[in-house]
Amino acid sequence: MSGLRGPVRVVGAGLIGTSIGLALARLGVVVELVDANPDNALMAERIGAGSRLVQIEPQLVVVAVPPDHVGAVIAEQLAQTDAVVTDAASVKSKPLTDARLLASDLSRYVGSHPMAGSERNGPLAARADLFDGATWAITPHSSSSPEAVELVRCLAEACGARTVELSVEDHDLAVARVSHLPQLMSSLAAGTLVDAPNSHLQLSGQGVRDVTRIAAGDPGLWTQIVSANSAALTGLLEQIRDELDRVLVALGKEEAGDELTSVLARGVSGAIRVPGKHGTPHIELVSVLVTIPDRPGQLARLFNDAAASGANVEDLRIDHSPGRPVGEVELLVKPGSDDQLTETLTARGWVVHR
Amino acid sequence: MSGLRGPVRVVGAGLIGTSIGLALARLGVVVELVDANPDNALMAERIGAGSRLVQIEPQLVVVAVPPDHVGAVIAEQLAQTDAVVTDAASVKSKPLTDARLLASDLSRYVGSHPMAGSERNGPLAARADLFDGATWAITPHSSSSPEAVELVRCLAEACGARTVELSVEDHDLAVARVSHLPQLMSSLAAGTLVDAPNSHLQLSGQGVRDVTRIAAGDPGLWTQIVSANSAALTGLLEQIRDELDRVLVALGKEEAGDELTSVLARGVSGAIRVPGKHGTPHIELVSVLVTIPDRPGQLARLFNDAAASGANVEDLRIDHSPGRPVGEVELLVKPGSDDQLTETLTARGWVVHR
Repeated sequence: MSGLRGPVRVVGAGLIGTSIGLALARLGVVVELVDANPDNALMAERIGAGSRLVQIEPQLVVVAVPPDHVGAVIAEQLAQTDAVVTDAASVKSKPLTDARLLASDLSRYVGSHPMAGSERNGPLAARADLFDGATWAITPHSSSSPEAVELVRCLAEACGARTVELSVEDHDLAVARVSHLPQLMSSLAAGTLVDAPNSHLQLSGQGVRDVTRIAAGDPGLWTQIVSANSAALTGLLEQIRDELDRVLVALGKEEAGDELTSVLARGVSGAIRVPGKHGTPHIELVSVLVTIPDRPGQLARLFNDAAASGANVEDLRIDHSPGRPVGEVELLVKPGSDDQLTETLTARGWVVHR
Repeated sequence: MSGLRGPVRVVGAGLIGTSIGLALARLGVVVELVDANPDNALMAERIGAGSRLVQIEPQLVVVAVPPDHVGAVIAEQLAQTDAVVTDAASVKSKPLTDARLLASDLSRYVGSHPMAGSERNGPLAARADLFDGATWAITPHSSSSPEAVELVRCLAEACGARTVELSVEDHDLAVARVSHLPQLMSSLAAGTLVDAPNSHLQLSGQGVRDVTRIAAGDPGLWTQIVSANSAALTGLLEQIRDELDRVLVALGKEEAGDELTSVLARGVSGAIRVPGKHGTPHIELVSVLVTIPDRPGQLARLFNDAAASGANVEDLRIDHSPGRPVGEVELLVKPGSDDQLTETLTARGWVVHR
């Protein structure tokens, strides 16, 4: 965080803005909190994210207001201060376009996008470590000054994030692919369940739960995000529509085989490209299934026993079976650790499947 | 399992057939194993799922062959034996239609669909408890005899499953909704990632991982399943295409707001109808987030401490942050248990967020 001295003005004391304030405050950087809703700024101040009144001019302004207002606030802050200005919106072209209409010189502005969040909103959901280890995209435009870019990078690093630099256009296409399109597909799939009778929903398994999970997100916020990225999303959605039409044509034929298989095989190729939880290339993990009674203390006993085997559990999934008091835990470990894990657990009395 | 005496002939010693054999063998029912591939039958016999040679006529035949062959094998078994015949295919109209073309009397046939599986295939992936607590749909057709329906119910219960009776048509529409459509949506979403540059995939988060997970399933098997259920699926896919067109029109407008929000809000209504892991109505769980070092033994220590609070952990999710040696565990508990859990964990030195 070499170049970042502060003060940092945070405009918008919601989840993201307040978390940035908390992260900077733990490093001793002076943070000024501004919010159109005085209650938000007050709450953020109370939990230690900064002060509502700071007498010194800011070195850096972070605009963390709802997507529709970002461009106007960027222009306003460029006019009011001599500070570098960045924003935290999840789409980068629209704030830039909006700001350009209102400000003549954007050299002090550099867009950024901290890729962390929570299903909860508002300052009380904020956490000093929200960005620890997260990806923080930095999106300079053609007239961003190198000093401004460097200062925004310092901000991201001070918050504990790993930075990735992308052009504005590239960023928006990337998030259309890995965030906005999956969101819409999840919403469309979930939408077909609205009119389903309960007897149909009774047959739900883990697949439909996974596919529809993010469809529960806030429609108001997602409308703003998706609208702001309409250009990048439209191209992808048109691809989806073409593929969907191919599927419909194939299903109408006597022999649907080859065309369907090619759509499904393309899905396999895409799915295995999604990075694993470490943000590193996809690593194949091996699963060890263990049956456990569904009562307090059993997971503790299981993990004690797993730890005794020396295996590091990389991920896990709990699947309760409907109508009976036992569940199944899937422990995912690196290939090579599974034999020792199975042996240790079996020796300690667990029912283990591979 | 009152009426089920055996022998039970299992045709198709793959994952499902062999697991049925193992489940019945543990109850002492004589199981005959038949497979077009003699290696499969041999392996299934070796792990105790039954015998390849049984001299007594079967009371019940279970057809567990790949979807495309089910109808023909049902007709063949009806002709060869006096037994009740059922199958385990995941689509029910097509086997019935196919069998009708080949057999004049289907009163001894009742379709069924044990809703359990694994990402692994073949007899060696089989487990005696695969169906314990699972849902097993039973789908009588208009001329199924009541005795045959009863015997198939006994089979499902002997395997430890919970039965749900549905008409053939209703079953196929239900699985189109909660299984086949989510599968296709996942494949279509994943398909758009095939050509993405690595820099785009670096921005992937949990959302795209969840939505695309099942897209990694076997394209050959899914082609057979989806083709067999084309009638039910076509209607749903046409709904999706109409909604997708609405989204595309909305994105092309200056003010996309209301129409997009209505599609997204419909998604929320659908998503919250998906039953939770217990197969019971969706219960809102409360999450408690805990930061943990990514090394062996930490999960054990965490679960010991969680158990000490008296809270039952209903579900959990591990999220490793890229590029640093700590992870975050989200513990999901029933509302009311979260305060005590947070207090206990904090007292024991964990960094807990709400």
